[in-house]
This record gives sequence, C-alpha cells and structure tokens, in this order.
Amino acid sequence: MDVARIGEFGLLELIAGLIKTKNVITSPFAQNLIAGIGDDAAVWKCSGAIQFTTTDCLTENIHFNTRYTGWEDLGYKSMAINLSDIAAMGGDPLYALISLSIPGSMEIENIESLYGGMIASANKYNVQIVGGNISASEAIIINVTVQGHSETRAFLSRSAAKPGDKIAITGYTGLSAAGLKLLKNGTVSDPETLKTLTNAHLKPEPRIAEGKTLVKFGVKTAIDISDGLISDLRHICEASGVSAIISKDTVPIHPALAKFFPTECEQLALSGGEDYELLFTADSSVINKLKEEIEIPVTIIGEIKEGPSTKITVVDKSGKEQAVSHTGWDHFKL
Amino acid sequence: MDVARIGEFGLLELIAGLIKTKNVITSPFAQNLIAGIGDDAAVWKCSGAIQFTTTDCLTENIHFNTRYTGWEDLGYKSMAINLSDIAAMGGDPLYALISLSIPGSMEIENIESLYGGMIASANKYNVQIVGGNISASEAIIINVTVQGHSETRAFLSRSAAKPGDKIAITGYTGLSAAGLKLLKNGTVSDPETLKTLTNAHLKPEPRIAEGKTLVKFGVKTAIDISDGLISDLRHICEASGVSAIISKDTVPIHPALAKFFPTECEQLALSGGEDYELLFTADSSVINKLKEEIEIPVTIIGEIKEGPSTKITVVDKSGKEQAVSHTGWDHFKL
Repeated sequence: MDVARIGEFGLLELIAGLIKTKNVITSPFAQNLIAGIGDDAAVWKCSGAIQFTTTDCLTENIHFNTRYTGWEDLGYKSMAINLSDIAAMGGDPLYALISLSIPGSMEIENIESLYGGMIASANKYNVQIVGGNISASEAIIINVTVQGHSETRAFLSRSAAKPGDKIAITGYTGLSAAGLKLLKNGTVSDPETLKTLTNAHLKPEPRIAEGKTLVKFGVKTAIDISDGLISDLRHICEASGVSAIISKDTVPIHPALAKFFPTECEQLALSGGEDYELLFTADSSVINKLKEEIEIPVTIIGEIKEGPSTKITVVDKSGKEQAVSHTGWDHFKL
Repeated sequence: MDVARIGEFGLLELIAGLIKTKNVITSPFAQNLIAGIGDDAAVWKCSGAIQFTTTDCLTENIHFNTRYTGWEDLGYKSMAINLSDIAAMGGDPLYALISLSIPGSMEIENIESLYGGMIASANKYNVQIVGGNISASEAIIINVTVQGHSETRAFLSRSAAKPGDKIAITGYTGLSAAGLKLLKNGTVSDPETLKTLTNAHLKPEPRIAEGKTLVKFGVKTAIDISDGLISDLRHICEASGVSAIISKDTVPIHPALAKFFPTECEQLALSGGEDYELLFTADSSVINKLKEEIEIPVTIIGEIKEGPSTKITVVDKSGKEQAVSHTGWDHFKL
C-alpha cells in the first residue's frame, strides 16, 4: 500500500506509533522531555528554562512555485512558518538552522535574495541563523529548524483544551488561500486588495508576541493555522480528546476576502490553509481581557465540547448544522 | 552566474558572509551563542550546560540510490551522520527531529523500514525522536536535526588547531568510498570483505564515545570526516588559520581496502568521503594517552604548521611532496 492511500495524517499517526513503541531510551536525560511528537514543537527542560525545537520545509512545486513567488518572499516565508510553530507554543525563537537543497543551475543572485528574505524575517524577530547545510537536488527544498525558549516554563500545547473553553482566533483566515488562487489564475481590479490577499500567502507573519501574551494570560491551548481552521481545530480536539462546535457566522471575514470571493469567502476562512494565525481555547473572560492586550483582532468563533468523538460541528445562526466540503490540506490524499 | 560555477564551498562562504553582515540581532540572548556557522554544530549556552544543534539531509540520487541501499540502512545512516556531527563537537546527542519529503507512491512498508533504521540508530545512542514533519516531493529527502549537550561546557571545534599539534584520526578512512564503488559496479570474491566495505558506506557509526573521550583528555580541535580526510583537514586549517602536513605512509590502510583496491587504496583513504571517523589535533603526549582509552585504532598522520596559507601538503617517507588528485566531495563543482 502506498502513502497516498493513507494520507499525510494517516502516515503521521503510523510514524508516531512506531516511535512511541520502539524508540525507547534509557538516558537519564530522557526525563527532561516535556512534549515530543504531536505538537507544533518539541518541548524539553534545560535548567530553569524550557526549550522548543521545530523543523519544517517548503518544497518547490508542492509549497511554492517560482513562477509567482519572488526569492526574497520565499526566504521570508520559509523562516516565518517555522517561527510560527514557536509562536504556537508561546515561546521566543532564538536560533535557526537552514538545510537548503538546490540544483547546481540555480543563479547565485537568487540564492542571495532567498537568504536576504530569511535574514529579514530572522532580524524582525530577533533570531540568529547559526548553521545549516547545502546539498544538490533537482527541486528546491528549504528546510528550516528553529530553536526557541521560554524563561517562564509555561507554554501552549494542542492537548489542553477542555469542555466549556471558548475557541478563538487571532486575525483573519482564508486570505492566504485566496491570495494563492489569485496568484495562480486571476487578478482583481483593486491593486491594494490584490496585495492584501497575495501578501497573506507570500509573506505571512508569525504571531510571536501574541503567543507570548496568551501564555501571560494563562492560556494553555493553541495551534498555528497552517492546514486550515477546521483541520487545525481537529488537531486540538484529537490531542485533547474533546469535540468542538463552530458558529459559522462568528468566523471573521476580512473585507478583501468578502469583496473578491463573495460566494467562497466562508469556505476559504474555514478551510484555506497557511494563515499562520493562532487558534486557541480559553475561558471567555480570559479572551476578553486578551483582546485589550493584542493589537490584531481576536474573535471567539465557537466552543469546546465533551469528547471523545473529536467531531467538529459547524452551525449557522439558527443552530443548524452546516456541511463543510473540504477540511484542509493533505500532502498525499488522492 | 550559477551555483555550479562557485561550488559548494564557495556558496557556503558567500552565505556565511551574508549572515555575518546582515543577520544582526539585539536580543539579550544573543550573547548565549558560543559558535554559529562554520562548525559541525551550533553551540550555545543554556544555564550550566552547553547545547549543540545540527541539521543535515540525505537526498535520493545524490547521497543514496535505492537500487543498492536498503530502507533500514538508509534510515540508520540518515540518523547516524547527524549524530556524527554531535560526536565531532564532543557532545552527547539527546533529541532528533525528522523532516521527510517523499512521493505519494512510496510504499508504507518501506517507510516503516526507514523509520525502523532511524529508531535503531537513535536507540543505540540514547536519542529520542521528538518531532518532525512529512511533505510530498518527487525525490526522497531525509532531513534530520539533532540536539545534543555537554554538561562539562567543554567542546571540540574546527578552529582551535595550533602549529605543533599532531594530526590524528580514529579508525580507517576510504572504506566507505570503496564500498560505494563496489555497490555501484563491482563485487569481490570474499563476502566478508565485501560486507566490511559496503557496510562502511551503508551503515556508518558515529564516534560519540570517542568524541567525549577527546574532550575528557583536553583535546580542543576535531571534525568528522564526511567530505574526505584532506578536505576535512582543510576545513580545520581554514577555521584555525594554520596549514598542515600529512605523512602519506602513516595514514592507516585497512587490510580490506589494501586487498581489493591495491592501486587506489591510498587515494581512497586520503580523499574518499563519508567515513564519519574523527579527525583531530592535539599534543602527541595527549594522543598517546588517548590510544589506551579508545577502543578503535587512533593514528597520528601528520602535523599542524604555521598559517596563514592553509595549505595541506602530503609527503612520502623521504619527505617528497605528493600530488593528491582529488580532494573530496563537492555537491556542485562541474
């Protein structure tokens, strides 16, 4: 049986099972591991602080296409999406390592622009690039590892949601998916709106300050929205053993999305991936306090319910259940 | 100008320069970085201990070919070569993250074997696999990140060699390159010898215990031999601002190499890559003490000389300079 049959998440589950049962070590340092496979980053103790490590890649013709992606933006995004995983843990990113696979025919000036983008994103978030390696390949693959920390020892995870928690998001979702549609096939008459949507796809910002604020206010549960709102909420539900209900009409729709995708905007907001906003759960009183502290909009969109079904229900104003046709990105599903 | 024109090491130098001049951050944690780009792993302080992080990848048809590489061996090697970078720093590896890019047509059982090999190597060296990600790609790329530490705060680097130091290696070099030749084109009549050579290529072992012993005896300078003995010695010379002289006749030749590659064995030992032995420099008295502590052979093969030319000279018994035709692997050189 091939990977396409079980899909990305089936494969992840299989691998996590293999590691859990077979990767058993006896090191006295094993007890320093706080969270391993199954969250946005691994978490481990180092003296008074906790450390985070995450790794992710962008692959040519899978995650990006150089026909409509500039080299500097590509570099910026490859760093930002990894910083976003540290943001989702409520940590501060510190160090990055870049493992770059490229064809020998790649132009030097494009590599300089690519690193220029990575450095711009690293500088913005006070991250030092400390290592990496370069290897030959047919397609371009940019693998970034980010090391982060938290001096408070508190962090966010996918597995702490409990029934009664409200579900909230920072900012807006669906813009990146809409931007990708425009980059691939279309255009809109209004250049500013076009830029809002395409920039959401090409140059996302990690919500690092926001993640740290969540920790400061006692929030325990978060994920960054990379696969799509519903899909990432499912990751929280699965990790926490709970289910969730989303009130479709409370999901914030950015004016640019509503204007240029009037019939698709709700679907894009619920299922479009690569938003890199934070999806989190907490008491409504905590969320209301957070709203005053966080500069971007924070919106309550639903509630965590009893598990163990891990079902995500989307309802309209009248409480009627809505069908959600597509629920996020899977690398391998046919 | 494309990458092939400046080669892997020209490109690494260019990128290191970009990062050094442009990736300037103001974080109070920046001062915790001890060593960044230019060594086998990044080194940073975390309270009483020091931490190491390294990342490297194996790419299909560049680093391996599934025609003659089994999945379990491939997994084992992809973990081992990253553990080797921690060994070259004198550290203890702790955690690993795996970023796997594969085509959707890959068979599940092959993925299980691949992870089986990674887990076998991780278990052998007390390493916990704590995260990673999976993405689609045309060719298989296995990117591994390893996090290590040293409680003593002492470590090995490429940049501490000084004139008068003797140059030594653990074990034998050239076996992996010989094994690759046999896997590609040939065979030998003696199956045990065949296995010795092909195993050196397919299933290298990181010299973790040996690296820690070097630190214990006060050695400051080491590198793991991945690009080839001469090429990796050049990395030490460049980082330390010294030159070096190698006595060709003291370079140990494994009997299997001498038997089946009688005319090429010296060249293979000097320039064949992927040995993952440790190349280090120290006083001869220290090296002689080390020999009693380290189970595998330790051999003095040359001496560090004044810089700044960073030239590597290979001499025969009479002191006559020898030509070395090929000096290691470059991903991009035409």
